[in-house]
Amino acid sequence: VGKPVFTSDRLYEEALPPGVVMGLAWTALGGTSLYIETSAVLPRAAQRSSNAPKDAASTDTAGGSGGGGGGGGGGSGALRVTGQLGGVMVESSQIAHHFARRELARLAPANDFLERAEVHMHVPEGATPKDGPSAGVTMATALLSLALARPVRADVAMTGEVSLTGKVLPVGGIKEKTIAARRAGVHCLVFPKGNRRDYDELPDYLKDGLDVHFAATYVDVYKVAFAPQAAEQEAAAEAHAP
Amino acid sequence: VGKPVFTSDRLYEEALPPGVVMGLAWTALGGTSLYIETSAVLPRAAQRSSNAPKDAASTDTAGGSGGGGGGGGGGSGALRVTGQLGGVMVESSQIAHHFARRELARLAPANDFLERAEVHMHVPEGATPKDGPSAGVTMATALLSLALARPVRADVAMTGEVSLTGKVLPVGGIKEKTIAARRAGVHCLVFPKGNRRDYDELPDYLKDGLDVHFAATYVDVYKVAFAPQAAEQEAAAEAHAP
Amino acid sequence: VGKPVFTSDRLYEEALPPGVVMGLAWTALGGTSLYIETSAVLPRAAQRSSNAPKDAASTDTAGGSGGGGGGGGGGSGALRVTGQLGGVMVESSQIAHHFARRELARLAPANDFLERAEVHMHVPEGATPKDGPSAGVTMATALLSLALARPVRADVAMTGEVSLTGKVLPVGGIKEKTIAARRAGVHCLVFPKGNRRDYDELPDYLKDGLDVHFAATYVDVYKVAFAPQAAEQEAAAEAHAP
Repeated sequence: VGKPVFTSDRLYEEALPPGVVMGLAWTALGGTSLYIETSAVLPRAAQRSSNAPKDAASTDTAGGSGGGGGGGGGGSGALRVTGQLGGVMVESSQIAHHFARRELARLAPANDFLERAEVHMHVPEGATPKDGPSAGVTMATALLSLALARPVRADVAMTGEVSLTGKVLPVGGIKEKTIAARRAGVHCLVFPKGNRRDYDELPDYLKDGLDVHFAATYVDVYKVAFAPQAAEQEAAAEAHAP
Repeated sequence: VGKPVFTSDRLYEEALPPGVVMGLAWTALGGTSLYIETSAVLPRAAQRSSNAPKDAASTDTAGGSGGGGGGGGGGSGALRVTGQLGGVMVESSQIAHHFARRELARLAPANDFLERAEVHMHVPEGATPKDGPSAGVTMATALLSLALARPVRADVAMTGEVSLTGKVLPVGGIKEKTIAARRAGVHCLVFPKGNRRDYDELPDYLKDGLDVHFAATYVDVYKVAFAPQAAEQEAAAEAHAP
Repeated sequence: VGKPVFTSDRLYEEALPPGVVMGLAWTALGGTSLYIETSAVLPRAAQRSSNAPKDAASTDTAGGSGGGGGGGGGGSGALRVTGQLGGVMVESSQIAHHFARRELARLAPANDFLERAEVHMHVPEGATPKDGPSAGVTMATALLSLALARPVRADVAMTGEVSLTGKVLPVGGIKEKTIAARRAGVHCLVFPKGNRRDYDELPDYLKDGLDVHFAATYVDVYKVAFAPQAAEQEAAAEAHAP
């Protein structure tokens, strides 16, 4: 029983807080898991009266490539991103934010959280440059988790580009991302439907024990990410047992 | 008794004012101590009536990489950073600002200082370029110290990246930073839990006499930084003695 | 008695107007004196009713590195800088502006000039690039002089980096700056306390006849800059003589 080793693959060792979702990335050095963290501050006035008409509203903000976020026009519905994201990934966050607002209006019409909140999205580790569109579904899920105040399953990781209307597009590095998910101890994966063939061609020892879902649209991602977890289901079953 | 030598390691020789915290940095030339200075101006209107509803509010602002801060839309809840900070460190300040606002809402729900204040964060010396994420915990602590109007212990220095939700991530240069802390005459250190092994491997003559704390989340940092100091405790004990 | 020769060292030959202070700079060509000029415009609304609640308020503005000041969002409490200042010097002006606002609130709580005014800071000559943090104390003094509508002593020049909380940090080129001050006919100098040794090591013929003050914090600068001048004191003494 030596000292515990810090596992950078699992920054969150236990249940995830609402707003945090694990994604899978593909780098020159192989695959890696990463977290999309989102957190929000509500203007005090909005906290007091959440039904008050918004005055300015909905300024999407994003930093330039590889630099600090620009000063966002204030008001509500703003998004700030950090984590040394490149231009494609910053745009990806804007698409995810827009889509999440639309999806939230559909899922929970009375929930105007994303219209009022100043959301900060961060992708640790802060000094590592990141880019690409494949965190789109992860970003959208993190924003919905935050807005719904509902954590996602702790054992899920995902990858996939999301279009403005919620289509899930295929991405690269399926083999490397599968290895990264195993290394992070995650067993439930969401991949784009367009990557099914890439996954099927993997050797069995990589696929063994994994629960993989293929998403054509974001709805498919949502169903997996916000499904009750096995442990919870068991607990619920016990609670209802005579 | 010659003339006193200016000690750049200790810009603040006595007790620290609220809003100022010592960090530890790692450069090509070795470790060094530095201060995160924060200071705030409250809009006059807000000073008069802090309960008045804000109209626009809360634009976080940050400069681009290595340059002056961009002109932030005014309003409350703003952050300006100076000190020739690079892109990663500017983002780090934004993460720390967001986290501090959330943490303050948790610690002191009635305290809306960071929502109203225009905060200026500076890292002397002003002409020395600085970068990296490892001042995250120091920045968050400085902002909380400022908002709570409560100085931190004068004998503490810290290093660690902070994630948006308050996780403390490991950093580089533990040996160099330990040496820098000793040189600055600081005996109480806060390091990330993920660096415990790095510290344990240091030779004993470097660790001798140091009181080192390892933080997994920001709560661990807070407890050390805002703990009553030994001297104060003794004074308090004496004051209560019969 | 021909035409007066323009002395670039003494742009202001007589008493200084409020808002203008002489600094000392250090260039590749040696030391030089320069002026920090500040001037303000008050928004019309604020001129009419200085107690009216501000709507948005307090936009600090700064130009990008090596360029003119960026267009500040209007409003009150703004700062614009010109004079081909580099990134470090632009940040230095922001630090000085923040510090001056805080210091003014302490010195003259009813004086909200810097909260309302759009201040323009210029450093002639306009085509000469300048950079570095050592004009910090000079900038802060110029802003306080402007806000207090009180000129500084005409025979004082100063140099020193100022931190956000008013600590005065040492700077380079003490010898060159001393020579530049003599050449400009200035006899009262304010240097950072951290440069006392540099000054003491100068040959006596350079120090002869100079009245040098060493500042650890900005308070030390303020006392010298705004002290009644010898001539005024004599005049005052005569006025009160029987």
